[in-house]
Amino acid sequence: MQESELRQDPMTKDWVVIAPARAKRSHSPDVPPRAQAAPSDPSCPFCAGNETLTPPEVYRDADREGGWLVRVVPNKFAALSPGASETRKEGFFRSAPGVGRHEVIIETPSHSGDISGMSPEHVARILRAYRERQRKVSEDPSVRFVVIFRNHGERAGTSLLHPHSQLVATPVVPALVRRKHEMAERYFDDTGRCVYCDVRDAEIADGARLIECTAAFAVFAPFASRSPYEMWITPHEMRASFALATDDEIDDLARILRKSLRRLRACCGDVDYNYVIYSCPRKDEDEDYFLWHLQIVPRISHSAGFEIGSGMFINTVAPELAAQELRAAQFDQVE
Amino acid sequence: MQESELRQDPMTKDWVVIAPARAKRSHSPDVPPRAQAAPSDPSCPFCAGNETLTPPEVYRDADREGGWLVRVVPNKFAALSPGASETRKEGFFRSAPGVGRHEVIIETPSHSGDISGMSPEHVARILRAYRERQRKVSEDPSVRFVVIFRNHGERAGTSLLHPHSQLVATPVVPALVRRKHEMAERYFDDTGRCVYCDVRDAEIADGARLIECTAAFAVFAPFASRSPYEMWITPHEMRASFALATDDEIDDLARILRKSLRRLRACCGDVDYNYVIYSCPRKDEDEDYFLWHLQIVPRISHSAGFEIGSGMFINTVAPELAAQELRAAQFDQVE
Repeated sequence: MQESELRQDPMTKDWVVIAPARAKRSHSPDVPPRAQAAPSDPSCPFCAGNETLTPPEVYRDADREGGWLVRVVPNKFAALSPGASETRKEGFFRSAPGVGRHEVIIETPSHSGDISGMSPEHVARILRAYRERQRKVSEDPSVRFVVIFRNHGERAGTSLLHPHSQLVATPVVPALVRRKHEMAERYFDDTGRCVYCDVRDAEIADGARLIECTAAFAVFAPFASRSPYEMWITPHEMRASFALATDDEIDDLARILRKSLRRLRACCGDVDYNYVIYSCPRKDEDEDYFLWHLQIVPRISHSAGFEIGSGMFINTVAPELAAQELRAAQFDQVE
Repeated sequence: MQESELRQDPMTKDWVVIAPARAKRSHSPDVPPRAQAAPSDPSCPFCAGNETLTPPEVYRDADREGGWLVRVVPNKFAALSPGASETRKEGFFRSAPGVGRHEVIIETPSHSGDISGMSPEHVARILRAYRERQRKVSEDPSVRFVVIFRNHGERAGTSLLHPHSQLVATPVVPALVRRKHEMAERYFDDTGRCVYCDVRDAEIADGARLIECTAAFAVFAPFASRSPYEMWITPHEMRASFALATDDEIDDLARILRKSLRRLRACCGDVDYNYVIYSCPRKDEDEDYFLWHLQIVPRISHSAGFEIGSGMFINTVAPELAAQELRAAQFDQVE
C-alpha cells in the first residue's frame, strides 16, 4: 500500500493530503454518460433566436450574417447587481447591499458543445469576451475584485446545458483573496520576486508535474493539487491580471485551454469540472507580486466533513501520476 | 425580487452572498428518496458479525450480551496513519509523511439508521466515543489538531450506508485553522473575550436566527451562513475543546443534535449533510480565545467556480428564514 504524504502549497501554505491508497482506482473514475444535448432548445434563453429571453446584452461578437458568435448578458438571477455600496454594522454583524456584477458569457449560439470540442478560433473569441468584460466592469470604481469561471456539469454547480461561463465582480476583496495576496506581497517584499512566477519556474525545472509548455504558457499539475487531475495554466509573461493579457496570449491560451480539457477528457471521460481565471484585485494590476493564471478543477470527489473542518483536502491521485497520464493522453489533435 | 446582501462572518471576516432571488424555491429542495438500507449487509465491514473485516478496534462500548453498541476502528483506507513525522523541503516544495490518525466511529451494529432516528441515550454513547478517542489520540505529542465529522450521503462525501463518523488527527495545524485562531487570539487580545462566545451571545440576544436554547447549548443559523439551513450548536460553558466536554454536556448535546437533525429533515427531507466538531489545536486547550462547537452543513447546493475562485459562498436561503422554518418544524418529539 502506497503511503500518504502531506504537501504544503507554496503559495497559500495550505496542506493537502496526497493519499493514493484511498483511491479505489488510480484513474478512470466512473463517469456516467452525460445526456446528449440537442443542438438547440426552444425554451433555452441562451439559444440563438431566444435573445429576448435574456436581460439586454452587454457584449456581442457578431458574425457577418447579423447573428452572433458570443454574447454576454447580465445574469437573470444575479447574485450581485450594479448599485451603490455602503456597509452597515449592527452590533456584531456587518453587511452590505449585494452590489457588483454577475454576467453570463454565452459561449455559442448552439445548445450543445464544450470548449474542448470548439475550434481554437472560437475559444479565442470566448476568451476575448472574458477580457473585454473584465476590463469594462473594472472601470466601475466600486468594483474591487473580478473572477471569471466556468462550471461544467452538476457536480461543478450548474444544471444549465447551454455552454456558458460567468463573471462576478465584487465590491469587497474576498477574505481568501486578501490572505493569498498578503502572502504573495510578503514573499515579494522578502525576495523581490513573485511567488507564482517562482512556482511556475520550479515546476518547469522539476518537470515531474509538467504537462506542456507553449510559446506563452506552462501547464502543470501543481505540487499540492487539491483535486485529482487539477491543472494550472500560467503565462510566461508577468502580468497581475487577465485583463492585461495580449491578443497573442489569448490566441495561445485558446489552443492550450482546449487541449488541456481534451487531455482531461481522454484521461477521465466527460467529468464535471470548474475552471477559474485568477487576477489580482482591481487596484493592484500594476503590481509585480501576483501572476494571473487559469486553474482547472475536475470535480471527481466530493469535499466532506474533513475538508470543511480543516480546510485540508485529500487528493487520491498523486500530481506526478496525473501529469504523466495527462501528458501521455491520446486525443484527436486535429483542429 | 428580493435584493441580495453581502454579510461578513464576524469570526473569519469571510464574506457570504445571501441571494434569495437565486433560489428556485425558498425551501423544500428536491431530495430524491434515499435507498432504504437493509438492517444488515453480509458484506459490510461495519455490521455486527463482521468485526474481523476491520482493522483491530481501538474502542468498544460493550452491551451486556458480549456484543457492542459503538465501535471505533482505524480507517482501512486511512489518509493518515501513526508514525514518525519529519517535514522535508526540496527547493520550493515542502512535504511530510502522512502521519496522524484516521479512525471510523461505527455508530451502531445495525446497517441502517441515522442519528436523527436513534435514541438520545444511544447518540450520547456515540458522542462519548468521540470524546474518548479525541482525548486518547491527543496524548500523542505528534498530534497537533483533531477534527471529528460525519458525512451523510453522497454529496457529503460518503457512499457507505452503514452509520458512521470519522476522526482525523493531523501532525500540522491546518493553515485555515491557524488563520481562524490567529483572528480569535487577536480579538481576545483586544477585548479580553472569546469572539465565538460573543457571537453566540449576540445571536441569542438578537433572536432572529436563534432556533433553540437548552440548559447547556444554543442552536442558531449563523448570520453569515454559507449554506441554506446551516446550524451551529454552541455550548454556554466556555471550553476550547470538545475533549473537555462534561458528561452532562454530552447528554444534552445528544438530545439537541438529534433534535436539530430532525428539524432539518422536517424542513428539507433526508438531505445529505456534514457535521463537524471544532476544537482548538491540541496545545491550546486551556486557552480562553476559542469555544468548541458543532456545525451542521446541509449539502443542498454544489460549490462552483465562484466559490473556488473567491472563497465567497452564495447562500440562497436567508438564515432568518431558515431559522424560522427550523424553529417551527413539526416532528415527532417522542424519544
